[in-house]
Amino acid sequence: MRTIELWDKSVILIDQTKLPQKLRFIRCENAEEVARAIERMQVRGAPVLAAAAAMALAVTALRSRARKKGQLLRELRRAAELVRRTRPTAVNLSVGLKRALEAAQGAPDVERASEAVVKEARRIAEEDVKVNKKMGENGAKLLRNGDVVLTHCNAGALATVDYGTALGVVRSAWRKGKRIKVIATETRPLLQGARLTAWELKRDGIPTTVVVDSAVGHLMARGEVTKVLVGADRIAANGDAANKIGTYTIAVLAKEHRVPFYVVAPTSSVDLDTPTGKTISIEYRAPREVEFIQGKRILPKGVKVLNPAFDVTPARLITSIVTERGVVKPDKLKSLFKS
Amino acid sequence: MRTIELWDKSVILIDQTKLPQKLRFIRCENAEEVARAIERMQVRGAPVLAAAAAMALAVTALRSRARKKGQLLRELRRAAELVRRTRPTAVNLSVGLKRALEAAQGAPDVERASEAVVKEARRIAEEDVKVNKKMGENGAKLLRNGDVVLTHCNAGALATVDYGTALGVVRSAWRKGKRIKVIATETRPLLQGARLTAWELKRDGIPTTVVVDSAVGHLMARGEVTKVLVGADRIAANGDAANKIGTYTIAVLAKEHRVPFYVVAPTSSVDLDTPTGKTISIEYRAPREVEFIQGKRILPKGVKVLNPAFDVTPARLITSIVTERGVVKPDKLKSLFKS
Repeated sequence: MRTIELWDKSVILIDQTKLPQKLRFIRCENAEEVARAIERMQVRGAPVLAAAAAMALAVTALRSRARKKGQLLRELRRAAELVRRTRPTAVNLSVGLKRALEAAQGAPDVERASEAVVKEARRIAEEDVKVNKKMGENGAKLLRNGDVVLTHCNAGALATVDYGTALGVVRSAWRKGKRIKVIATETRPLLQGARLTAWELKRDGIPTTVVVDSAVGHLMARGEVTKVLVGADRIAANGDAANKIGTYTIAVLAKEHRVPFYVVAPTSSVDLDTPTGKTISIEYRAPREVEFIQGKRILPKGVKVLNPAFDVTPARLITSIVTERGVVKPDKLKSLFKS
Repeated sequence: MRTIELWDKSVILIDQTKLPQKLRFIRCENAEEVARAIERMQVRGAPVLAAAAAMALAVTALRSRARKKGQLLRELRRAAELVRRTRPTAVNLSVGLKRALEAAQGAPDVERASEAVVKEARRIAEEDVKVNKKMGENGAKLLRNGDVVLTHCNAGALATVDYGTALGVVRSAWRKGKRIKVIATETRPLLQGARLTAWELKRDGIPTTVVVDSAVGHLMARGEVTKVLVGADRIAANGDAANKIGTYTIAVLAKEHRVPFYVVAPTSSVDLDTPTGKTISIEYRAPREVEFIQGKRILPKGVKVLNPAFDVTPARLITSIVTERGVVKPDKLKSLFKS
């Protein structure tokens, strides 16, 4: 079971808003429907957004009636615009769109342009899984028996096509027989830690404890966390990393308690065009996500809410970045991109 | 409208679990019912627990059929034991019980012992309001126009008999015409910030923004918080302060961003018999509080949950402690108790 798949001219994806109560799939028949699923966070997680974006173009191509390559390209660009607008922070979404569009552009005619988009979307999905397993291997070396790994939000199979980034490292270490435990923060407002990370790790039999986000300081002060592993939505050229709101708070606590803090992300999440974290656009999402939990209002009406979806952790607070090409200090990030 | 009152041989209290949706009152006719209301957090907040505890003994006395003082004292001690067992962290609860019991012991006969308990319970409630207003005055001097005060949980009128500790300071500054704003953390698991603090401040017209607990780091990094004001459940002799889970995390962030961090609490929350925060007993509450929100399950079944209700902020992270006797550095706390 993958988080997302291209099947029968459609994108089939797990509806992550329904987990853990129900494992439901959604079928998206065009780019609009994929864009809507992304906006609603039915599919979320930086790496999987590359596949979702490319697949949105793939279904556009598969259902297009264009007879000329130029017309197909116009349709694809329109679809790409729809998808691009959904979420600004994760760089992977743009990368997926760019790769799919370039594949179409490079083809000699409309049939082969269409095939190229579909092939590229499938390639992105396959690469994602391979890259995650490689990151898992690289990162597993950092973990040892007895480690208690704190993770935030969901950087797991559900944030990727399969296997996961931070949770991929946990999986690889666990499969190598390392006796580790996980502490998952529940991750308000959308509770991806409580709903998704706990669900994934329970299925794998990896011992997991859920805590509220604000308990991290207390646990670290008691020496109950030995490593932090988180994902990233975009890593700037200087090693600053944007990730789910609350990541920065955990990084400050990790520094205070001398707990190693690792960011696990594919090199495709590194944006060399973004010099530092200061220029990363932070998405502010609807107040509704904070005001209501599972459809129930928790706040008095008329009270203002601020709902930043991400924050930026400066490179100085990151011990190392785990990628498929190796584990590097944030200031050595660029060395991964030298040919 | 007070958070709690002694009326018609009963304790009448606002059911804080129903706010902000409904403003409902509960009538407790004996100590068991008061103890249950405390356990269920229908009444919560360190200072008000002193009044609640004393009032539990007051209703015991008012409804007692004891004809001898010795018998009444036994009934009161039994009631005190019930109430004492409910929650271990806030020192105020024990203080309230102790004062009410001593009042009874000091009386010459059963009638006057009964009267003395009732009188002492009322006195504790009156003192609480006076002390809060005095703290408000003392603390308001720390705030200036343009301040954005971050507060955690509810240290407001609902945590006290009336007026509040940290929110008392906010109220006093606001009433003096200082243009301040409040950021209230929602405070998982029981959402006292979102439900209670937002409700109180909205009624007073004080501009308030609610954020998820994990957004504090992000806001401080952006310079959007100028002061932190929190309450305390117990302050050790060395100035370490136990308060709602998440307070310590905020204190670490405040230090990192050089934001002044103030604890606002009556001297009755200072426990000179507790030398440091290390010996404060931290209550771990039922996993259910994290697993369910407003009756809806958010976690997969069978996943472990850890639910510490408090944490300890070491004195070195506290800028000053605001009490009714003055504002002191944590290491000067003992000076408040010299006669």
